Amino acid sequence: MPTYRAPVEETMFILCDVLGYQRHDNLPGFAEASPDVLAAILAEGAKLAENVMQPLNRVGDVEGCVRNADGTVTTPRGFREAYRQYCEGGWMGLSAPAEFGGQGLPYVVHSAVGEYLSSANMALMMYPGLTQGAIATILAHGTEEQKRRWLPRMVEGTWTGTMNLTEPHCGTDLGLLRTKAVPDGNGRYRISGQKIFISAGEHDLSENIVHLVLARIEGAPEGTKGISLFIVPKLRVDEAGNPAAPNGVSCGALEEKMGIHGNATCVMNYDEAEGYLLGAENGGLKAMFTMMNEARLGVGLQGHAVGEAAYQSAAAYARERLQGRSLSGPKAPERKADPIIVHPDIRRKLMTMRAFNEAGRALILWTALQADIAHRGQDEQERTKAQDHLALMTPVIKGVLTDKGFEHAVMAQQVFGGHGYIEEHGMSQFVRDARIAMIYEGANGIQALDLVGRKLPANGGRAAQAFFREVGDFCEAHRGDEKMTAYTKALKKGLNDLQAATLWLMQNAPQKPDNAGAASYDYMHLFGLVALGYMWGRMVRTAQEKLAGGADGDAGMMERKLVLGRFFMERIMPETAAHLARISAGAETMMALREEAF
Amino acid sequence: MPTYRAPVEETMFILCDVLGYQRHDNLPGFAEASPDVLAAILAEGAKLAENVMQPLNRVGDVEGCVRNADGTVTTPRGFREAYRQYCEGGWMGLSAPAEFGGQGLPYVVHSAVGEYLSSANMALMMYPGLTQGAIATILAHGTEEQKRRWLPRMVEGTWTGTMNLTEPHCGTDLGLLRTKAVPDGNGRYRISGQKIFISAGEHDLSENIVHLVLARIEGAPEGTKGISLFIVPKLRVDEAGNPAAPNGVSCGALEEKMGIHGNATCVMNYDEAEGYLLGAENGGLKAMFTMMNEARLGVGLQGHAVGEAAYQSAAAYARERLQGRSLSGPKAPERKADPIIVHPDIRRKLMTMRAFNEAGRALILWTALQADIAHRGQDEQERTKAQDHLALMTPVIKGVLTDKGFEHAVMAQQVFGGHGYIEEHGMSQFVRDARIAMIYEGANGIQALDLVGRKLPANGGRAAQAFFREVGDFCEAHRGDEKMTAYTKALKKGLNDLQAATLWLMQNAPQKPDNAGAASYDYMHLFGLVALGYMWGRMVRTAQEKLAGGADGDAGMMERKLVLGRFFMERIMPETAAHLARISAGAETMMALREEAF
Repeated sequence: MPTYRAPVEETMFILCDVLGYQRHDNLPGFAEASPDVLAAILAEGAKLAENVMQPLNRVGDVEGCVRNADGTVTTPRGFREAYRQYCEGGWMGLSAPAEFGGQGLPYVVHSAVGEYLSSANMALMMYPGLTQGAIATILAHGTEEQKRRWLPRMVEGTWTGTMNLTEPHCGTDLGLLRTKAVPDGNGRYRISGQKIFISAGEHDLSENIVHLVLARIEGAPEGTKGISLFIVPKLRVDEAGNPAAPNGVSCGALEEKMGIHGNATCVMNYDEAEGYLLGAENGGLKAMFTMMNEARLGVGLQGHAVGEAAYQSAAAYARERLQGRSLSGPKAPERKADPIIVHPDIRRKLMTMRAFNEAGRALILWTALQADIAHRGQDEQERTKAQDHLALMTPVIKGVLTDKGFEHAVMAQQVFGGHGYIEEHGMSQFVRDARIAMIYEGANGIQALDLVGRKLPANGGRAAQAFFREVGDFCEAHRGDEKMTAYTKALKKGLNDLQAATLWLMQNAPQKPDNAGAASYDYMHLFGLVALGYMWGRMVRTAQEKLAGGADGDAGMMERKLVLGRFFMERIMPETAAHLARISAGAETMMALREEAF
Repeated sequence: MPTYRAPVEETMFILCDVLGYQRHDNLPGFAEASPDVLAAILAEGAKLAENVMQPLNRVGDVEGCVRNADGTVTTPRGFREAYRQYCEGGWMGLSAPAEFGGQGLPYVVHSAVGEYLSSANMALMMYPGLTQGAIATILAHGTEEQKRRWLPRMVEGTWTGTMNLTEPHCGTDLGLLRTKAVPDGNGRYRISGQKIFISAGEHDLSENIVHLVLARIEGAPEGTKGISLFIVPKLRVDEAGNPAAPNGVSCGALEEKMGIHGNATCVMNYDEAEGYLLGAENGGLKAMFTMMNEARLGVGLQGHAVGEAAYQSAAAYARERLQGRSLSGPKAPERKADPIIVHPDIRRKLMTMRAFNEAGRALILWTALQADIAHRGQDEQERTKAQDHLALMTPVIKGVLTDKGFEHAVMAQQVFGGHGYIEEHGMSQFVRDARIAMIYEGANGIQALDLVGRKLPANGGRAAQAFFREVGDFCEAHRGDEKMTAYTKALKKGLNDLQAATLWLMQNAPQKPDNAGAASYDYMHLFGLVALGYMWGRMVRTAQEKLAGGADGDAGMMERKLVLGRFFMERIMPETAAHLARISAGAETMMALREEAF
């Protein structure tokens, strides 16, 4: 059975030492979470993850959710109690506004704890995760009355939320959606249609479920311009705000999935259900993107989190499993064989996972901090810059960290050999669970298009240029420092490849858009490598500074950073050149065959 | 539900046009399988795969195998009948010697059909696959009496075979194994111990099961030098050669696995079971490698085969699924959306899979042909050269094609978006099934070590040098042909990287063996890319020749080869440089952390 320990000291190092989290104490909520409070919160979150969530992870996989004859859904044993503890601990509203019952703490703290909880139990954490996305959407687009009506119960967790986008014939292409909304003459709408793949669509954790549903108001324009977003509760709410009559919303079936069995993935049927317009009429796509962007960061976090959990299991196994002898002579001569961690190819896997994970964590926290600045900053220029970063990095975090999270779950499973293929060891579950993160909230190919087609050219390329400048300045600033040379040289090489790829896109995509599409996936991963490499640059610099200053009890950890950062530069950054070569190959060969040829 | 069509014309192109299969009609068995007979055999094999095996693939996944209270195992519905048809068609003994009831046809024909059958139903095909490995081992190491006793029933499929290596505490490191063999004084042995992960260990397809079991004879030396191989039948066989009394062999449990549910993976208990020494006393490891090498090629074929099946499903879905519009303007304006195959990133996936698959098929068939020459050739020099090739390419085919088969199953699943994650579409099964091929018969990290540590240095590097020379000569021979330049240039670049990596190993591994281990995985994949690139070089040259000669009805197929080959060179070969960079980084950073640091 996998074990899991939340990497609290790693989080603290990134937040306080690398990102200078405490410098932002002028922002609302930050002063309330000073470093020592932060450490206490992380420790509490760690306990919840390790002691409550993680022990239920395999239970959720084995039992799955059950749809009963009456259409209700029963979650796996223990999920209700764990969810109750999560809500009672105030975790749902950690960074939600105080006026709706939240604690108003920084979003970055929520993200930090979110990693631990998703590492421990991804399927369970999806219930609150979707609720938080719905909360953010209502906060951004709801009327004051809607906020007062829906948010307090959602923030306390008594009600959960969902997002209802996909229909059988349309996922990515929401312009095709058919779910209908008919005005009832009283300012409300009657919603009818079928939605599929609705995570947490029906379950027994909360007394009500607040569905956010994309639908087309009768007579609305075709395509995406005619889509509106609606609040459609499972139970209608009376004047006092209490759940009352059922609302023509039902779960028609549960999907049988490859993984995340603990989460109920529902076919949802809407039959003239009462719904309330959220945001502007025909402005549903825009409102949905609030939900989506929040969710995409959350999914990137999931990918990272499952990869981390899988890594921890692999590392523990590699230290314990005795098999063969080191190529350089026995390391445990007193035993029948050496632990497999002595074998370089096992090390390669562990180092690869860990070097990615530490940088992935830094990238997530850096970006979450930018989200705080974007939403809470007092200076407009600062807010804009942070918003640019957030928008730019969202597809990178979603696309790259979920691809890597899955890849690393597979790699961790490989460390177990044949035992990894047997369900009881839990490694298969990590692989099966991590797989969905590459698909939902926009398949990773869509993230790549979002990056290349929207985020990169936005505002004349302002966001990307700022990022390139920041990384370039970092390399320049440490060029003369011989302890940093090995790192900045590799990073600069990666940055050069990324800038060359960007230039190629600017020169070749406008007249032939397929060149953008053909380059997009490699571009996203190239971008991710440079962003992760930059995180290593910063972590290494911090570690060097701490070592120079004595580092006290942290010296071991700081030395480890230097090694892991070097590994990243030596073994992972060389991939940037291959990405650039593929990007520069263009779309011609890729698109040359006729459809029938496949 | 996935559909599958066996790519018979692709196989014929590779065998007859590229590899010049018919030139070998001086070898035993080849004249009997002239190109038109070959085409007829492939067509029959295709029918069996498409009509009998494939429809049972999902049944096997859903039902799995069941161990009954009496220790017997029931295979999924339809498996018995399909296996019967397989045996009645003579497929089990297709390339087995005629004196034991086989048809004596070339091994390469067996491999060609084997692809179709494994694409259609990997789990089912493991039952005969293991039997064929056992047949090969008894052929190579059995006494005449043993061959007469065991082979005819195995060749007709009435009895199946297994290989019993792994024990709970030892997989890769067989020196640790504990299963005991005690001489009974009559030339036989009593075998006792527990084996795990025994594929097809117990089932209801055959009347007897011939287990090949590694065990340690009482008093034998420690480690791998003291291991012997035994024939241990499920039912002892009487003087007339008929199954008689039970033999202290039982299936203790079935493993619950991530995939290949249709195959029974057993815990096997041996309790003083009667066994017969196969090969020399304490020569078990050598004998086992006969079985292993045969099996490793078979597993490489599985990886390729499942990747091909997944590709076919993805291509069909991409042509049908309507979603979004082409970046270069609508392609199906009469419909609500374009088929997703118009999107470059979908194309990228399909082209990547297909470009790998066609080269993978060529590499497998080329190597299978070398196996025929190695075993049937009339000239010793020719046999040695073929044997060199076979030994060298076995870990490459196993390691690279199973990694890629899995990667492509994941890629094909991604084409389906959310629908790929739902079990009913069958894409999850491809991923779950393909996963094991990276693990069993020696995890791919072990293949990489086999390549770098054994195969590469063997006979002073003779095999690798011959391969490098062949590829180099090919590039040189077509350097002046402008239709070939784009291909040979990329191939030559890849070969240079491979030779540089080889040189690096020669210079850095002897004094520090960890450098070999640290480089091994990248080296294996670098080697694979060059081998696959060379296959593309040869396929493209053949296609150019056929086009120059008119090509008749094949022109479309030949044009497609040129495009796919170009794609491979443009998009896949650039990876060789990244492999070289990683290899050259050495082991130092990788091994720098202490074990406790992970």
